[in-house]
Amino acid sequence: MKIFLVSGVAVAAVLFGPAAALAAPSPEDAAFIFNTLSFLANGALVFAMAIGFCMLEAGMVRSKSTSAICVKNIGLFSIAGVTYAIVGYNLMYNGVDGGFIGSLGLFDTPDPASEASDGGYAAASDWFFQVVFVATTASIVSGSVAERVRVIPFVLVIAVLVAVIYPIQGAWSWGGGWLSELGFSDFAGSTIVHSVGGWCALAGIILLGARRGKFAADGKVNPMQASAIPLVALGTFVLWIGWLGFNGGSQLALGSVEDASAMSRIYANTYLAGCGGALAAAATYFAVFRKLDITLILNGVLGGLVSITAEPLAPSFVQSILIGAIGGVIVALGVPFLDRIKLDDVVGAVPVHLFAGVWGTIAVCLTNPEASLVSQLIGIVAIGAFAFLASLLVWYGVKLVMGIRLDEEDEMHGSDLTEVGVASYPEFVAGRSG
Amino acid sequence: MKIFLVSGVAVAAVLFGPAAALAAPSPEDAAFIFNTLSFLANGALVFAMAIGFCMLEAGMVRSKSTSAICVKNIGLFSIAGVTYAIVGYNLMYNGVDGGFIGSLGLFDTPDPASEASDGGYAAASDWFFQVVFVATTASIVSGSVAERVRVIPFVLVIAVLVAVIYPIQGAWSWGGGWLSELGFSDFAGSTIVHSVGGWCALAGIILLGARRGKFAADGKVNPMQASAIPLVALGTFVLWIGWLGFNGGSQLALGSVEDASAMSRIYANTYLAGCGGALAAAATYFAVFRKLDITLILNGVLGGLVSITAEPLAPSFVQSILIGAIGGVIVALGVPFLDRIKLDDVVGAVPVHLFAGVWGTIAVCLTNPEASLVSQLIGIVAIGAFAFLASLLVWYGVKLVMGIRLDEEDEMHGSDLTEVGVASYPEFVAGRSG
Amino acid sequence: MKIFLVSGVAVAAVLFGPAAALAAPSPEDAAFIFNTLSFLANGALVFAMAIGFCMLEAGMVRSKSTSAICVKNIGLFSIAGVTYAIVGYNLMYNGVDGGFIGSLGLFDTPDPASEASDGGYAAASDWFFQVVFVATTASIVSGSVAERVRVIPFVLVIAVLVAVIYPIQGAWSWGGGWLSELGFSDFAGSTIVHSVGGWCALAGIILLGARRGKFAADGKVNPMQASAIPLVALGTFVLWIGWLGFNGGSQLALGSVEDASAMSRIYANTYLAGCGGALAAAATYFAVFRKLDITLILNGVLGGLVSITAEPLAPSFVQSILIGAIGGVIVALGVPFLDRIKLDDVVGAVPVHLFAGVWGTIAVCLTNPEASLVSQLIGIVAIGAFAFLASLLVWYGVKLVMGIRLDEEDEMHGSDLTEVGVASYPEFVAGRSG
Repeated sequence: MKIFLVSGVAVAAVLFGPAAALAAPSPEDAAFIFNTLSFLANGALVFAMAIGFCMLEAGMVRSKSTSAICVKNIGLFSIAGVTYAIVGYNLMYNGVDGGFIGSLGLFDTPDPASEASDGGYAAASDWFFQVVFVATTASIVSGSVAERVRVIPFVLVIAVLVAVIYPIQGAWSWGGGWLSELGFSDFAGSTIVHSVGGWCALAGIILLGARRGKFAADGKVNPMQASAIPLVALGTFVLWIGWLGFNGGSQLALGSVEDASAMSRIYANTYLAGCGGALAAAATYFAVFRKLDITLILNGVLGGLVSITAEPLAPSFVQSILIGAIGGVIVALGVPFLDRIKLDDVVGAVPVHLFAGVWGTIAVCLTNPEASLVSQLIGIVAIGAFAFLASLLVWYGVKLVMGIRLDEEDEMHGSDLTEVGVASYPEFVAGRSG
Repeated sequence: MKIFLVSGVAVAAVLFGPAAALAAPSPEDAAFIFNTLSFLANGALVFAMAIGFCMLEAGMVRSKSTSAICVKNIGLFSIAGVTYAIVGYNLMYNGVDGGFIGSLGLFDTPDPASEASDGGYAAASDWFFQVVFVATTASIVSGSVAERVRVIPFVLVIAVLVAVIYPIQGAWSWGGGWLSELGFSDFAGSTIVHSVGGWCALAGIILLGARRGKFAADGKVNPMQASAIPLVALGTFVLWIGWLGFNGGSQLALGSVEDASAMSRIYANTYLAGCGGALAAAATYFAVFRKLDITLILNGVLGGLVSITAEPLAPSFVQSILIGAIGGVIVALGVPFLDRIKLDDVVGAVPVHLFAGVWGTIAVCLTNPEASLVSQLIGIVAIGAFAFLASLLVWYGVKLVMGIRLDEEDEMHGSDLTEVGVASYPEFVAGRSG
Repeated sequence: MKIFLVSGVAVAAVLFGPAAALAAPSPEDAAFIFNTLSFLANGALVFAMAIGFCMLEAGMVRSKSTSAICVKNIGLFSIAGVTYAIVGYNLMYNGVDGGFIGSLGLFDTPDPASEASDGGYAAASDWFFQVVFVATTASIVSGSVAERVRVIPFVLVIAVLVAVIYPIQGAWSWGGGWLSELGFSDFAGSTIVHSVGGWCALAGIILLGARRGKFAADGKVNPMQASAIPLVALGTFVLWIGWLGFNGGSQLALGSVEDASAMSRIYANTYLAGCGGALAAAATYFAVFRKLDITLILNGVLGGLVSITAEPLAPSFVQSILIGAIGGVIVALGVPFLDRIKLDDVVGAVPVHLFAGVWGTIAVCLTNPEASLVSQLIGIVAIGAFAFLASLLVWYGVKLVMGIRLDEEDEMHGSDLTEVGVASYPEFVAGRSG
């Protein structure tokens, strides 16, 4: 055993010098390490949300669009990383000072040689935690506009969303800008992340139009069924677990008893809001249709999660269940509502992330005595107007320049064939629906 | 870089005041944070086990029952959360004091305003870690009774299991009740979680009967093949990783060198018991059939994991492999045994969780000198009798009131169609088996 | 609430005595706990890479070989655990002292009774972190040789790889052997893990030959399409998140501000290298073929990740993107190159893990001033020669003794049927390709 230890130390010693293994952090250092660890561990959970979105969307689209949705998800995740490293982080957090925008400096990202101990956490850990939020915002869009948007135009719109639109509105609140001075309170981003993604998705589905055949001339809605339900369930479960980190990590610290206790309540409340959303969506749908539609129940989970995201700390357990349940009902009503107004949202992202996001942002006032309804409404409207109009402009610009939609024949064959060149399940498909 | 840091601090300051970022935890505070973090991080791993069960079961059932099994898994996970928040936790942990049951008080869950520092960890983190164990217990049942149980009756049975049956027997041991005073030792729940789930599953499959066509009149067994093997493999791997948190987190503390060392040994032993289970199940099956049946090998992993769960700390690495290997053999023998007595357990949950759970609880005596075989047997019998009889009663009660089984035609079409209204793979299925 | 706390303490007290909950770790103890926690948490992420490889490979093979690839992945993961517990760890880390090999002692693994506090971390946590690296190395091989290697011979080759070949070359560098004294620098294993896996795969595909029908007599390449693209995307995403732990945990410590900051930069850089790999591979392929081949883009992510693995700490964010991007280009060129020389690598593991691994090991010199190109080249060549020749010998030996390849008829039917006895998707397959 002695030998074992010695060799263990030897390895560390070779790589880092003996000090590394024998460190004795001061209490301030310990706080720094806890805070940093929180960003890394919770950030890894948020990273998993990218997996969740990709699986959910891959299961929800038809099998002729499945490879394409995977390309889009890998693409948006990669572009979010690169743009946030080059421009987004500075735009959002660097010198906003109560204003509207941060620094326009490029490449001014955390210096790898710096330890950044003044901030109470490692600069790069904060960057990592922030960048996965950007990616989440972008992930929301891809599902809504699936099956008829072309890959390259989609990727261009996303690039503007993650490099410019998201960071600017983020600067207003989390970056310390005018909305934060106004008292707008959105703990982990019901509005700042989820609604912004939802607004960009809404702009896209308006400009794109519905998938051909989705809305028949006689007003009937063709359901265009999800191709692989287990992937949708997988994606939803992974999003749920990732949301623990999304909300919990937004405590932004773990170096005190107070912070650890807060993060614990957030984990529990987040779990419970998802439960409430699932059960309420199931009950609502069952009351009308006497079926237990799995895609709606899964979207109910997500609606519950979005609803608790603006204030996951203050509510009691029972309040969290109820806030989530209302989110579930909103989703159960919002999905058929979009059908009625002939907007084709392939995965239901607008009801889940936008509608429930608005609800969640308002619901802050129910449990957090420091929030004001006026400030919340100003934040919802200001961010909504900016995100929707800016997104609309970008979608429209890209449409003018290169078009955004598959032509009729390509849409019929599916973009797996026409854009990706790889069938998603070449051995399986017996017949196509839709 | 300076600016970066300042803006970072500014964000924290806006949200939490400057104290949060500059905390310097005392040694007692550090222990509190470590303990709390262990509950959250290991609890997140246990949360992942819900994903594992859902994928395993979705892959094991036929494609006409796949949407329905996803509904059941999301449903049981949501109901476990809600009932544990309202009644289960108190019933299990609140004032048991050597007795048989805790408090019947409702809604008496951790106060979000409390930091609960006296207990050495955040109250809500403990609640979170406990609730995912309840969900695990429920997850065990859904697979066994799949493909012929109706969704609503299933969900009602599960509600009683998680709200009443699980917490009461949990109070006997983990809650500080009579079994714990007797010296019954079940570290992470071979009996308390896994066998209890297995007993409830066994009661269900007895009362339900087999799927139509499973056992032919001439005694032949119709295998009714799993519809998607990669999902079964995914589920098993995810369960394996989740089990690290299930066993490791059951150390219940991380704030000392002793606890961190114990958790490390538990992680390693848990990994190794799964290895032993896989290899032993494969060897046993191969010796007889000259094939390497993937579903049996995957169940062997799980059998190994269940076997080490009652005592994952005391065994050496080699002992862990052997304890897991015996679990794997038990599964390899238990699966055909159930077929022989004409019990239709769709996923093999009874051999995996009940049979191997009994073995694991007895095996504690091999490596933990403080355990007594008599106490272990009393625990196995008492918990088993209670869990089985109570479950049988509930299954029977629900059967009387509303019936629990799909009628013949619905079972033929599958409950995806009849109860969920959503086909799991609408574009793929060329022909149905069974 | 008071009662709640009291019962919480009671539980801990029953199980561990009151000391556990009231521990107050000294600063040295805190460093120990942080270091140990890093090994466990990052090790769990590396564990997830096994899931990633299994899903990637299950999606990339045809549906007649999918159950078999799952058997191989569970088998190699189990064998890696058992052999590393018995012989591998000692061979790699026990008393290498500048030499070529560690101890040949069997079963000399961490003593569960020891706390090993001298080393600054729990012995078993280090073992756990190391064993999942071994498993990763083995996972690389299974995909390359898929669809024509028989299961038992494959498992035998892997047993030698993980028990002997990997630990011996690992002893040279990480174990403190001659290469580490020479200054060879491979932070998390571009060469030591990824290239070694790649060399063993290359030896296998040379000796096995291509799948029948892959290379037509007229020189045409039959693509033999992946059967389930979403599983490939899932696997790649899971590998990406697992890689955070693979590279981040290789800091080997978390008990100081320095280590926490380093780990943070490694997380961010690892994420970004994957982004660079994806975008560069996509751009390279698109420039030539005007398609966005999803399997190539996903392999581009992995190529980027392998490239940053040898030095994930020193590069800036932009350098990480560029290092990853070159890895992506290498993969985009390497995949058709292998086709041209008629080597049939089913998943592209040789371009991803071997070619990009060599690049990553050389790229260390670009950002780490302490690395020397000569030392890097010596390491690449020495490890490469040893791993390739030893693997070739083992593959050849097994071939002589029992054969390694399915016979023609078995390959046509697929080893799911002939070796596993379980079809992967019995209800789905409409027609087979290939």
